[in-house]
Amino acid sequence: MTQAHDTLRAVKWDNMQLHLLDQRQLPHQQEMLILNMASEVAQAIKDMIVRGAPAIGITAAYGVVLAARDAYQQDATQWQTIIQKDLNLLAESRPTAVNLKWALEKMQTYFAQITGDPVLPLLAEAEKIHQADIDANYHMGELGAALLPKNCRVLTHCNAGALATGGYGTSLGVIRHGYANGKIAQVYADETRPWLQGSRLTAWELLQDNIPVTLLVEGAAASLMQQGKVDWIIVGSDRITANGDVVNKIGTYHLAVLARYHGVKFMVVAPMSTVDKKIASGQDVVIETRHADEILNIAGQRIAAKGADAWNPVFDVTPAELVDVIVTEQGVVQQPTVEKIANL
Amino acid sequence: MTQAHDTLRAVKWDNMQLHLLDQRQLPHQQEMLILNMASEVAQAIKDMIVRGAPAIGITAAYGVVLAARDAYQQDATQWQTIIQKDLNLLAESRPTAVNLKWALEKMQTYFAQITGDPVLPLLAEAEKIHQADIDANYHMGELGAALLPKNCRVLTHCNAGALATGGYGTSLGVIRHGYANGKIAQVYADETRPWLQGSRLTAWELLQDNIPVTLLVEGAAASLMQQGKVDWIIVGSDRITANGDVVNKIGTYHLAVLARYHGVKFMVVAPMSTVDKKIASGQDVVIETRHADEILNIAGQRIAAKGADAWNPVFDVTPAELVDVIVTEQGVVQQPTVEKIANL
Repeated sequence: MTQAHDTLRAVKWDNMQLHLLDQRQLPHQQEMLILNMASEVAQAIKDMIVRGAPAIGITAAYGVVLAARDAYQQDATQWQTIIQKDLNLLAESRPTAVNLKWALEKMQTYFAQITGDPVLPLLAEAEKIHQADIDANYHMGELGAALLPKNCRVLTHCNAGALATGGYGTSLGVIRHGYANGKIAQVYADETRPWLQGSRLTAWELLQDNIPVTLLVEGAAASLMQQGKVDWIIVGSDRITANGDVVNKIGTYHLAVLARYHGVKFMVVAPMSTVDKKIASGQDVVIETRHADEILNIAGQRIAAKGADAWNPVFDVTPAELVDVIVTEQGVVQQPTVEKIANL
Repeated sequence: MTQAHDTLRAVKWDNMQLHLLDQRQLPHQQEMLILNMASEVAQAIKDMIVRGAPAIGITAAYGVVLAARDAYQQDATQWQTIIQKDLNLLAESRPTAVNLKWALEKMQTYFAQITGDPVLPLLAEAEKIHQADIDANYHMGELGAALLPKNCRVLTHCNAGALATGGYGTSLGVIRHGYANGKIAQVYADETRPWLQGSRLTAWELLQDNIPVTLLVEGAAASLMQQGKVDWIIVGSDRITANGDVVNKIGTYHLAVLARYHGVKFMVVAPMSTVDKKIASGQDVVIETRHADEILNIAGQRIAAKGADAWNPVFDVTPAELVDVIVTEQGVVQQPTVEKIANL
């Protein structure tokens, strides 16, 4: 695999093993976990050791390599049947990120061509998916930053950075590129409850690149916009549907409504693997709901009164009409529509 | 002091001492702190042992009693001069809640009439302020609940309950009354970062009264409204200006914008002591900003990467045009304007 110049990688293949940065421990500890089984990979995705739609897709692709190695060792002639169980495990690990499904399907298209040991040919494909994602992120970084005025103040949500992708990041790729080129004067980041990806991951990742960042609670974003301190909101996506609706981390839709109300621009940055042309609109996407305890507890401590319930959807749907621009590696779509998405 | 039928009291005068429920320890522990000095009262307000605009006002009134006792013991003829230092301490303990200033001024109007020991006459006034607040809350509970349709789904923010007032609560007073009268089918509460008053206080307080509550992160409120699951947003206020602008906990303005966008009604419940007719608009109110660590740390643990900054305003300003109704004990104001507020 060609290494790009930046070094932050949450997903690595090394010494015939999959290495995942345990993002649950950031920013306090940087521990790489080593995985040798597809079932471990599925569990790591489920447990959010790795998160972010593109990173999940890449991780799953490497998971297929591990699954194939295991299946081939069990029976060299039946591996394509034996592997199905692991493929299902991987597919079911997170329901919302389309990149997961996309990566698994892409890996399976190569099965028919393989004779003999599938490990090296499948590894080559997984590494190709990984490198293509990094390349796409660099290109989107350029395309997105080109849309920004000089001295722009931007607000991002969750973490759509190197940690959430193969490397460099989608929305943070635009912010990295924009910052390096004098386009960005100020970066704000929502802390992003309940998982605090903004505080734990985005702040850490940007500071690694010496990009200053100011965190805020989600409830303060409206006030920040009211005070005229934000020019662009820049977010990633877990799935973009055929009509341009954007499924992304809970809190994204709230920013989109607030942006429109305050005349702030709203940019979504996502690779083509996130675009799901088979799904008509965001209404048709299954939105994962996680356990109430993620809200009722914080940092392992119970916060809420005993007996309280919580509603914990992981994603929300931003209708296309609230999106000013979608940036993909295939180009930029202003005011997305079914036609414009189809033409990508 | 006449005791109303509900028993939850965060502020109590007993045995010639001020008792404050340490709200920082809720819902895990119910510890009453006993205060004997005005300086301790000022510190308790500053440290958010007691919070909520009406409760701060009542606490400060009792603080004046303690200050007067101390000053009178120092010099029975000069106590009205000596007490000024403590009055300043109390006045400066929190900048945004107008009720604090209002209660201090109200207590001082009685100074001229007092001959001899000021403790009992001032205590009688403080208890009158306290009881009037509870009575106002009951009345507002009725007035606000009367505006709700049957089986209403409501969302509240922060804690404007018994804990934030003399008892019964403002927005939670409406919710208590509405729930008891079959008006309310579902109560949602924002967890309310960074202090988590929703999770820690509102959920606890409602569950004490057997009112079920579902918590959500602020970023999910827009999604909840998008799904048509909220009919009314009901919040308290720390200051209402002459034009009907509402200063309240950070995240209130965000709900007001989202409510208008989704056709959800927005109700503010606050006693007349919160209405500051001397201030023209919310633009003129000093908004308290607290330390970044309240966002960068959670539950005593560092969350954000070292080097990250945070913007931590405690309140925001909701312009009057986003407010559907203000409920006070003097009556209800629909679509507040300067004229309607002046006529209260």
